[in-house]
Amino acid sequence: MLPKIVDWNQSCLHILDQSLLPREEVQLKLRTPNEVSTAIKEMKIRGAPAIGIAAAYGLLLAAINSRDQEYAELINNLKFTYNDLMNTRPTAFNLKWALDRMMALAISTSSKDQIEHLLAKEARNIHKQTEESDIAISELGATLLQQGSKILTHCNTGALATGGQGTALGIIRKAWELGLVDHVIATETRPWLQGARLTAWELKRASIPFTIIVDSAAAHLMDVTQINCVIVGADRIASNGDTANKIGTRSLAILASESNIPFYVAAPSSTVDLSINHGHQIIVEDRPAEEVTSLNGISITPPDTHAFNPAFDITPHRYINAIVTDKGIALPPYEFSLTKLVHND
Amino acid sequence: MLPKIVDWNQSCLHILDQSLLPREEVQLKLRTPNEVSTAIKEMKIRGAPAIGIAAAYGLLLAAINSRDQEYAELINNLKFTYNDLMNTRPTAFNLKWALDRMMALAISTSSKDQIEHLLAKEARNIHKQTEESDIAISELGATLLQQGSKILTHCNTGALATGGQGTALGIIRKAWELGLVDHVIATETRPWLQGARLTAWELKRASIPFTIIVDSAAAHLMDVTQINCVIVGADRIASNGDTANKIGTRSLAILASESNIPFYVAAPSSTVDLSINHGHQIIVEDRPAEEVTSLNGISITPPDTHAFNPAFDITPHRYINAIVTDKGIALPPYEFSLTKLVHND
Repeated sequence: MLPKIVDWNQSCLHILDQSLLPREEVQLKLRTPNEVSTAIKEMKIRGAPAIGIAAAYGLLLAAINSRDQEYAELINNLKFTYNDLMNTRPTAFNLKWALDRMMALAISTSSKDQIEHLLAKEARNIHKQTEESDIAISELGATLLQQGSKILTHCNTGALATGGQGTALGIIRKAWELGLVDHVIATETRPWLQGARLTAWELKRASIPFTIIVDSAAAHLMDVTQINCVIVGADRIASNGDTANKIGTRSLAILASESNIPFYVAAPSSTVDLSINHGHQIIVEDRPAEEVTSLNGISITPPDTHAFNPAFDITPHRYINAIVTDKGIALPPYEFSLTKLVHND
Repeated sequence: MLPKIVDWNQSCLHILDQSLLPREEVQLKLRTPNEVSTAIKEMKIRGAPAIGIAAAYGLLLAAINSRDQEYAELINNLKFTYNDLMNTRPTAFNLKWALDRMMALAISTSSKDQIEHLLAKEARNIHKQTEESDIAISELGATLLQQGSKILTHCNTGALATGGQGTALGIIRKAWELGLVDHVIATETRPWLQGARLTAWELKRASIPFTIIVDSAAAHLMDVTQINCVIVGADRIASNGDTANKIGTRSLAILASESNIPFYVAAPSSTVDLSINHGHQIIVEDRPAEEVTSLNGISITPPDTHAFNPAFDITPHRYINAIVTDKGIALPPYEFSLTKLVHND
């Protein structure tokens, strides 16, 4: 069993600090919206769906902490928190999806007493819906896999990324239960090492056989080994299927295409942003250079070395063979299939 | 000015310990063939051309340390050292090239006194020839570049890799002198971080503007920035142009091809192995998993995590636009151009 990744109790948000894994398993108790936004910014909690859940609870904390305020002041605090949380990680669409749902409810009533109640209910709904979405994705995704599959995955898309059982890693977990998985290859995922630290931690606990490789070894592996498919998550999906995901995804998709290996994206339908037509409209977050130039607090490079640290990249839809959502599997052309799925409420 | 990378004086091989850069600049004095082979295995000296030079001096050390032995014993010691050095790094062809040249001379005379003299002269020749080769490569390669070039490079192919001025990085250095370089993008090159540690160290000293990226960010950079070309080194080149080079090279070549960015390989003609027809005949060295699972002596992954750590990969010739050697620039079809260049003595 995994420890709780994200949990609400006693009017506090409890998260497992992912920046310390796999060395330490430390639970953090977040009591204020600012503690939530800082935890998201510092990637103590990460993964688009998990960020959405945390942000929803962050807005709930704003309401709880404003109990003694007047209505106008409460709404102001909620708006401030909304903006603060929205600015933590600009790429993940689930963040906006969750915050918009919460905010729409907050302003739907002029009763101050109602607001906290509505937000508490909605945050739990978002949390529960994400967990259910993971189950649907895992079951649908597993139907794409054949027995004896060697699967390559990138970053972490498991329980740690969603608070449920995971998206891409949820599929792998389900396929393992069904006896379809021979081996998982997990890229280490520099600079933050979500693969080497977090995916390895989850796979080990699930007793699924896996091997870690440096990110740049994927092409060699595709050359010398039979890889049956690549499955990754997503942080935002444009209506044409272009997908923002962890830096390195674009590279894996192009390499998979070159080797005729199916490339699948797995994400809840809340990751699909129908307001944008293509991937280049997605803002890609640039993170601090120090994440590249130092490791474990020790500098790798010469002093004052400039580094460029984009957290995500855009994978053009033409390299994606299928997008697995909780509402079904979308196939190209995605402008039709994705819109249909998302509207299928 | 760079400190001496590889130097012979007072009957000792002096090398700069590359495993400690950029934090410490420590000179090592190697007095025995075993110290040389250990330094190569532990990558205290690395880069195919530099390994060739170090191995030549290693064989010379075997001769010096056998001064008091009979002729048969001396030859036995040389053969033992030849095999020991040959087994340090199986992929680099310059190692075999240098050792074969040395060994051929050693067995060309039955005069014991002659052997040490011949080996000393030949090791210096190999060293000098590598330096001259770098100059030729740099000048030829620079002719391929246009003004304002943004160049992406991988691993370290500079003075540290050759003992001269470098191959791919030598071209960049020369092009910078000619005012052709706008910016260099250097991949960090996991797991050993030759880019972040060594290339950054060299570029900084040469005052050439550069940015470090994680290896997996190359595709994103090619998507959002104008990259004018990719230049890399080589550890062994098959007669059809297939090239073994640092893990991650294959990926960069495929990505460059996808983005219509010219992809150049730079290496001395001693890297071309005409005895093999294609890249899959090249032995790719697998290195210890610990190079992936730990960093700066600290474990990254959960305990007992399995990692696959191939040190090189094979780039098919169809992705390579030109191979720059000291004897000229080879263009496709390489089975003709490379053979012609190598035989042009």
